Amino acid sequence: MFENEERTNIETLGEFGLIDHLTKLIEIKQKSTIKGVGDDAAVLDFGGKKTLVSTDILLEGIHFDLAYTPLKHLGYKAVQVNLSDIYAMNGTATQVTVAIGLSSKFPLEAVEELYEGIYLACDKYNVDLVGGDTSSSKQGLVISVTALGYAEEKDIVYRNGAEEGDLIAVSGDLGGAYTGLQLLEREKLVYLENPNIQPDLEGKDYIIERQLKPEARKDIIQLFKDSGVKPTSMIDVSDGLASEVLHLCSQSNKGCNLYEEKIPIDPMTYETARQFNLDPTVCALSGGEDYELLFTIKQTDYEKLKNLLDISFIGYITEPSAGRNLVTKTGTVHELKAQGWNAFKQ
Amino acid sequence: MFENEERTNIETLGEFGLIDHLTKLIEIKQKSTIKGVGDDAAVLDFGGKKTLVSTDILLEGIHFDLAYTPLKHLGYKAVQVNLSDIYAMNGTATQVTVAIGLSSKFPLEAVEELYEGIYLACDKYNVDLVGGDTSSSKQGLVISVTALGYAEEKDIVYRNGAEEGDLIAVSGDLGGAYTGLQLLEREKLVYLENPNIQPDLEGKDYIIERQLKPEARKDIIQLFKDSGVKPTSMIDVSDGLASEVLHLCSQSNKGCNLYEEKIPIDPMTYETARQFNLDPTVCALSGGEDYELLFTIKQTDYEKLKNLLDISFIGYITEPSAGRNLVTKTGTVHELKAQGWNAFKQ
Repeated sequence: MFENEERTNIETLGEFGLIDHLTKLIEIKQKSTIKGVGDDAAVLDFGGKKTLVSTDILLEGIHFDLAYTPLKHLGYKAVQVNLSDIYAMNGTATQVTVAIGLSSKFPLEAVEELYEGIYLACDKYNVDLVGGDTSSSKQGLVISVTALGYAEEKDIVYRNGAEEGDLIAVSGDLGGAYTGLQLLEREKLVYLENPNIQPDLEGKDYIIERQLKPEARKDIIQLFKDSGVKPTSMIDVSDGLASEVLHLCSQSNKGCNLYEEKIPIDPMTYETARQFNLDPTVCALSGGEDYELLFTIKQTDYEKLKNLLDISFIGYITEPSAGRNLVTKTGTVHELKAQGWNAFKQ
Repeated sequence: MFENEERTNIETLGEFGLIDHLTKLIEIKQKSTIKGVGDDAAVLDFGGKKTLVSTDILLEGIHFDLAYTPLKHLGYKAVQVNLSDIYAMNGTATQVTVAIGLSSKFPLEAVEELYEGIYLACDKYNVDLVGGDTSSSKQGLVISVTALGYAEEKDIVYRNGAEEGDLIAVSGDLGGAYTGLQLLEREKLVYLENPNIQPDLEGKDYIIERQLKPEARKDIIQLFKDSGVKPTSMIDVSDGLASEVLHLCSQSNKGCNLYEEKIPIDPMTYETARQFNLDPTVCALSGGEDYELLFTIKQTDYEKLKNLLDISFIGYITEPSAGRNLVTKTGTVHELKAQGWNAFKQ
């Protein structure tokens, strides 16, 4: 197929390039479509509260390795990844649909384990599983989840609302999921070389859980409500901090200064990154899969959030001509670049 | 994995058995969830019109064979299959999300072709593509589509509303998609044996299109509106007429008499089935993928639809103890059995 024709390698575009390329000609036809492609979730209006929709697909060998991913964790994560997109709109997640493709290597017990994780996530986040599709697969496990939720129109936070002077903040800490992955990959190699050696993950529970069992930040949305703050822009951290900051800047048409020393990194993440000869800051900037919320707020809202331990202020929004900059610990200024986890880089 | 543990082969359950097994313990938590798993689409209430959601996944080697499926047709079909579920609720389809996994064998031009078909379907059916996900895949092409739509609560038609005495009707004709598939499979084998022989599909456009490029029956929903008829139950024909009739009967807790001679079969379907030594009735009952609408109406509504060429009355609903029967052309009565296309039969 396509052997004798023009071939453009998809890798040259990257995931976001491909999405842009494929969606740039979309014209919205339905009155009920408030926001289509281009944010964490679509926004629909069926006459009451706005409906939010988001879809993610997880593929064996790309997004997960069953050598070290328990199926229950995988089901849990597949749901979390999608709920995270609804929260990133400042919405309430309410339903999910789950479509799975299963190769014949999976017995029913395996599927049950997967669904145990799905249901656990649904229960914990008060979300209903309302539909889906199951099929056999010739190629391994495929999980596609669609999350639905709602929000009042006035509460919805898009990616494009950041204004000059707004503060950039992030929940939790970053880089843990990526360093956890390095650890799991290392132990997998050790195991493949000598199956008698037990994996050495002792004391690393936190970053292993960050990778295998992320928690979408529903609590941060509640916190916004409780403290009367509406972020001016927001996105969830799935591809790495740098990539997400750049998304907010480009969709808001703004610049930014990001301060390396302010980026929240857990001590275990820091120490493990060092063990792997990785720069902990790079793990936070480019690692991805932390599923924290990155957002901007007006300076006047700073007082309301400044004492919250789980929120770090890491920079501020500038006019577009000032560029998008990372100020390092030594004070040098670099252009912020996204080298995030990219599903098209093999 | 699971080698030394209990293994239950999923095939022993079948797709519907697996779904039942996995979803039987679901408890609905959200007020906005009106109807979850178990119909063509979920029904959600965010304060205005009801929101309808349905998801389907298409996997290379299971649902399509790229040896004879043009990518544009595949994109078109992936959308149609989902819109069909929204129409089967008597709803208006308004949005889709599309998640795809692509192996490296696909250049950008291939993805463009796929999306051309997706957009063509969206344009023709007045539906917005509002989101999705793209990823590389280690295993070939994966397409997961979620369709959204809406309906006034009073207009929604579920699978469980059929009453004794209701007439069973179906749109269009049946068995065409399955006989079209037989033709495509035969020509693929011929081609594999001798690549110099051109495929012989002349004069078979109709059934080839039934397989490769089905059309969801939006027009039938309009027709219900125009003629002031609300079906008592409805489902789309994706797995074969027998399977769908049994779904309506079991969810409505009723029996039925279905008349073989009334089942609408196109002459080309009939002739092609015969060429393959297949019983055309079996193709209609078990072939699947026709994406017609199967529905029941009150006898008092018969006058309003009886002159419509595109609707066939094929039987009626009985009390449950009368069983679910197929009355053959010779007048013998058989128990109706679903041997429909089953995604878990390899």
